[in-house]
Amino acid sequence: MTPRHDPHLKAFASDNYAGVHPEILQAIVAANGGHQISYGEDVYTEALQDVFRNHFGERARAWPVFNGTAANVVSLRAMTAQWEAVICAESAHINTDEGGAPEVVGGIKLLTVPTPDGKLTPELIDRQAWGFGDVHRAQPRVVSISNTTELGTVYTPAELTALCAHAHDLGLLVHLDGSRLTNAAAALDVPMRALTTDAGVDVLSFGGTKIGLMYGEAVVVLNPDAAGGIDCLRKTFMQLSSKMRFVSAQFEALLAGDLWLRNARQANAMGRRLAAAVRELPGVELSRPVEANAVFAVLPADVAERLRKRFRFYTWNADLGEVRWMCAFDTTEADVDAFAAALAEELAA
Amino acid sequence: MTPRHDPHLKAFASDNYAGVHPEILQAIVAANGGHQISYGEDVYTEALQDVFRNHFGERARAWPVFNGTAANVVSLRAMTAQWEAVICAESAHINTDEGGAPEVVGGIKLLTVPTPDGKLTPELIDRQAWGFGDVHRAQPRVVSISNTTELGTVYTPAELTALCAHAHDLGLLVHLDGSRLTNAAAALDVPMRALTTDAGVDVLSFGGTKIGLMYGEAVVVLNPDAAGGIDCLRKTFMQLSSKMRFVSAQFEALLAGDLWLRNARQANAMGRRLAAAVRELPGVELSRPVEANAVFAVLPADVAERLRKRFRFYTWNADLGEVRWMCAFDTTEADVDAFAAALAEELAA
Amino acid sequence: MTPRHDPHLKAFASDNYAGVHPEILQAIVAANGGHQISYGEDVYTEALQDVFRNHFGERARAWPVFNGTAANVVSLRAMTAQWEAVICAESAHINTDEGGAPEVVGGIKLLTVPTPDGKLTPELIDRQAWGFGDVHRAQPRVVSISNTTELGTVYTPAELTALCAHAHDLGLLVHLDGSRLTNAAAALDVPMRALTTDAGVDVLSFGGTKIGLMYGEAVVVLNPDAAGGIDCLRKTFMQLSSKMRFVSAQFEALLAGDLWLRNARQANAMGRRLAAAVRELPGVELSRPVEANAVFAVLPADVAERLRKRFRFYTWNADLGEVRWMCAFDTTEADVDAFAAALAEELAA
Amino acid sequence: MTPRHDPHLKAFASDNYAGVHPEILQAIVAANGGHQISYGEDVYTEALQDVFRNHFGERARAWPVFNGTAANVVSLRAMTAQWEAVICAESAHINTDEGGAPEVVGGIKLLTVPTPDGKLTPELIDRQAWGFGDVHRAQPRVVSISNTTELGTVYTPAELTALCAHAHDLGLLVHLDGSRLTNAAAALDVPMRALTTDAGVDVLSFGGTKIGLMYGEAVVVLNPDAAGGIDCLRKTFMQLSSKMRFVSAQFEALLAGDLWLRNARQANAMGRRLAAAVRELPGVELSRPVEANAVFAVLPADVAERLRKRFRFYTWNADLGEVRWMCAFDTTEADVDAFAAALAEELAA
Repeated sequence: MTPRHDPHLKAFASDNYAGVHPEILQAIVAANGGHQISYGEDVYTEALQDVFRNHFGERARAWPVFNGTAANVVSLRAMTAQWEAVICAESAHINTDEGGAPEVVGGIKLLTVPTPDGKLTPELIDRQAWGFGDVHRAQPRVVSISNTTELGTVYTPAELTALCAHAHDLGLLVHLDGSRLTNAAAALDVPMRALTTDAGVDVLSFGGTKIGLMYGEAVVVLNPDAAGGIDCLRKTFMQLSSKMRFVSAQFEALLAGDLWLRNARQANAMGRRLAAAVRELPGVELSRPVEANAVFAVLPADVAERLRKRFRFYTWNADLGEVRWMCAFDTTEADVDAFAAALAEELAA
Repeated sequence: MTPRHDPHLKAFASDNYAGVHPEILQAIVAANGGHQISYGEDVYTEALQDVFRNHFGERARAWPVFNGTAANVVSLRAMTAQWEAVICAESAHINTDEGGAPEVVGGIKLLTVPTPDGKLTPELIDRQAWGFGDVHRAQPRVVSISNTTELGTVYTPAELTALCAHAHDLGLLVHLDGSRLTNAAAALDVPMRALTTDAGVDVLSFGGTKIGLMYGEAVVVLNPDAAGGIDCLRKTFMQLSSKMRFVSAQFEALLAGDLWLRNARQANAMGRRLAAAVRELPGVELSRPVEANAVFAVLPADVAERLRKRFRFYTWNADLGEVRWMCAFDTTEADVDAFAAALAEELAA
Repeated sequence: MTPRHDPHLKAFASDNYAGVHPEILQAIVAANGGHQISYGEDVYTEALQDVFRNHFGERARAWPVFNGTAANVVSLRAMTAQWEAVICAESAHINTDEGGAPEVVGGIKLLTVPTPDGKLTPELIDRQAWGFGDVHRAQPRVVSISNTTELGTVYTPAELTALCAHAHDLGLLVHLDGSRLTNAAAALDVPMRALTTDAGVDVLSFGGTKIGLMYGEAVVVLNPDAAGGIDCLRKTFMQLSSKMRFVSAQFEALLAGDLWLRNARQANAMGRRLAAAVRELPGVELSRPVEANAVFAVLPADVAERLRKRFRFYTWNADLGEVRWMCAFDTTEADVDAFAAALAEELAA
Repeated sequence: MTPRHDPHLKAFASDNYAGVHPEILQAIVAANGGHQISYGEDVYTEALQDVFRNHFGERARAWPVFNGTAANVVSLRAMTAQWEAVICAESAHINTDEGGAPEVVGGIKLLTVPTPDGKLTPELIDRQAWGFGDVHRAQPRVVSISNTTELGTVYTPAELTALCAHAHDLGLLVHLDGSRLTNAAAALDVPMRALTTDAGVDVLSFGGTKIGLMYGEAVVVLNPDAAGGIDCLRKTFMQLSSKMRFVSAQFEALLAGDLWLRNARQANAMGRRLAAAVRELPGVELSRPVEANAVFAVLPADVAERLRKRFRFYTWNADLGEVRWMCAFDTTEADVDAFAAALAEELAA
């Protein structure tokens, strides 16, 4: 079969523009052939629990789902009663980019807080953590954060520990949207456990797709007292894959060795390389700290428009002329250099 | 990577125990590499519309989703207002096997009718098609049927045409759960269009997973007046795959040529072969007509128990001693013969 | 203010065609004037708990809501997790007459069973009480029954005790739709407790409107281990009355003395009187046992049509020519006699 | 029956602490007796449509419901598809005080905007009115405002007209939470129509309870193209009162003559009287403009605490020491003077 697309083309739009890492594809091929029990009772899914426990500790248990929106909604619903609400940053993916799925499918009210950098703090949590026992107010129950954040910033273990302690003091649970947790861990050079279990996170949405899987995310319960009923909830929320062996085999390929780390380091290194190249160019300015694989910049609208004809990327804030450039696990130095050169050309045009 | 499982092992439990057809896997590999726009704006998904139109007519439009439960719930929700209900057979998958997803996620009331063979008829529809305009009754709006049915039976084009005409006369729309539509078309040796568009079906859940895909089903709107908002609804209902090129490439491999038909014919032929072998054996009885790839039989409980240790399959009705044996696209003559021989041995034991 | 309607007109359509019992109206007037804390923190609502405890035992606690649909949906949601289902008779009000509220608002799947007389039995429960632990099946969690039933029949204490014991043995909870519980207790001449707490019912929807209130039903938890979060759930489900003193004062007037019993006895006696009169008339036949205030009868369609022009009532089953005549707390002997005379006239016409 | 409460006690906590206006109670009494068709087919509900049309124009149609939360949720759901969202002020009642009902029962995402005074403007709407056609963003469809606002401020006809025109230009509909619309109209001395139909409002939640009803609000559709299915939706959302004649009779008593205006003027006049009295007292400061019946003030915490032992009222913002004092239709000059005197005493203590 001939590809319909040019397999050499790269973009800087999102890490989910990338395809599947070859080692992941091999794992899929290896898992193929013959019959396996469907709906998660296969040997690959069974083996997967150890893989997750190695990263997240003895009490961790993972439920693979199809995508990140679902990992978040299943996690949050499993942590809350029907009248309970979730505190998050105004910029959180669950608030801005999931088509209302938390509210419509989950029936979950989000209590949002504006943040300067996409990160919640104990003080910011307090802005919404009130009204306990008042039936007129949807009852705060969970704090949901993202690491890396939607603004490309990274929470440190110390920040997370303080935030989780504060949340727990208030009787709140902590959910982490780890759509790019691998990037955060690679950026800080710490094990993923330091950013999750050890910091006090209760439930994790673990992201596979953006770091090299074809599809697959996982609800990972780190604190078994924090969430229940996920076996049933995953099915009811339409996220139980029949041929689950293929999701689990992908996760094993990603997480059993260091593929996750290699991929995350590559994406992050390309983010830094791009930031370094951009920093030198007059007429464009980095608008946020580059802490992982996302680069935010402000540039003239006409330059952005011309550049976009050569490399696809997204406008972040049209009013400010801010764009987002995202590097993936398969972004190469040559890709970055070509992009930077194109940017320089358009700035000079 | 070494497989964790024995790739020669076959079961007769479900067609979703099978893996991925090699041609499908090749399509995935061909679609890999480089970057493609995510969330369905890729060239594979664009090309897919023609593929579906070739099968289902000029007005058809397809929205790939992850699984069959979701294809059904998105379809039904797109066809109904929030106070409208869906008439279906008591044995329908949406009623029995989707963990309450239609009700919980979709907020859709099902109005069920007992059937002898899993098939609705105009008369059976009438048992629930009443109370129009009475606000106390969830308003009937859609008739949902499955072809092949959950009981292995097949609706003919004439039956479907009569059923759709009756539904339309009542002001009802028709949804078809086509999780195994390919098997039905192969069984009757008619194009899929004869069982859908031409018969008057309004919206179709088209099944890919059971006929050789790794994952992927599609909401296919045949009558554009019957359903709306699916672009948004698919996202809100957590079914928008970011790397959608891989779903679409699989569907293209299945549907652009005759792979779907070859696979369905093989599964059906193996169903017939198994039925023929069983028919000869004393102590076991076929309990339903074998019209596609499912074989229902009644046999002594101890025989079933011993046989199950050698080949996995499901009990259908424990009270009756009824079991279901399902053949897949990769079931071979040798598999069937080995199974029939094992059954004969256990019956004789 | 002059009434817009003829206050002497009576119908046999439903007990909710009646107005407000004068003693209830007096209680409303007495509760008026001055200010009371809103949303249920008033002295009337506080006093109400003792009133309910006197009827239903020391562990009972009541939450007034606006109507019966809401009492049922709040009760059932408070007893279930989001993937759990409710077993009920096909004829149950929650299944047939609530506009899909259990499914749409509650997200609750109903597992229905056909019954000859509107009553579930241990055997009938078993038809749906299976699949525990199978994530593909919405998990049975509650058995919901009505007393009196929608078909005018009455469960005895012995029947209820057996049914509750069976449900509890299966790990199921029992909900009672007591929209007409007062009629059932009066019919059997037992305290309401014998039909609820003492029989093992876990949660009760207690009906006030049909027995003389202007508006008001109550979720009454008899077993505190069976339901939680109702304070919040009632508000979230839009059932928290701001001026709740008026609901509570009505309930106190109904339940603190014997008004509930006087009203129920009157309605039931009129049901019996009507049945006795009908029984003598040729051309009309009682189609169900008359155990409380509902009379079901089969009569010629033209007779029903003419009679309906004189007294409003509902067709129950058009195919069978079956109608329902319902007596209310304010139906008098003269009303019944006039209706029976009219029926005799139309039969003779 | 002896009242359980002191009918002379008044509070300044909320206008729903008040009871029922005597003329409303008379209407209830007049509507009692005999039988009326239930569920809204009575003569009182029929007559009500003219009453609403007289206020809101020929195209207006009203659906009585039980309470304000429900009026809002039914209105908003009737105006939106399941993936559509509602723009509102952060301080809106639907966002802060309805226990998550819009999200949990309605499945409606709210897009909130901080405001200085509880009022949206075209500019503030624009902060959330974007992303049309982007399936990742819940699609803005309705702008919901309150008049009077939750902060006691009042939109003028000119402000409303500009706001509605802007919303309509963007393809958005306008919903008005008119829980205290009567107070707004009285404050501006304009007909209610000037603040609704004539300004371009599409759907109105009309509030009865706070202005003298026992219970009862109404969904009022002013633009029939803006909302559909309310007959069914009201039932499905558990808001169809069986003895609806009593809701409708109350509304007629309120709206057919000038009772609504007399009540609103009294409440507003008492708000002004209280504001005037407070303004003179050292140590307490009005914190917001007093435009209707709500008075917001900042005072020392210990003073508030002592005062609260004498008159009940709510803290609005604990951090700022801000409280809210609300006057009702039955607040008298003597009540205000007694309260102001008590405040003066406590300030001097």
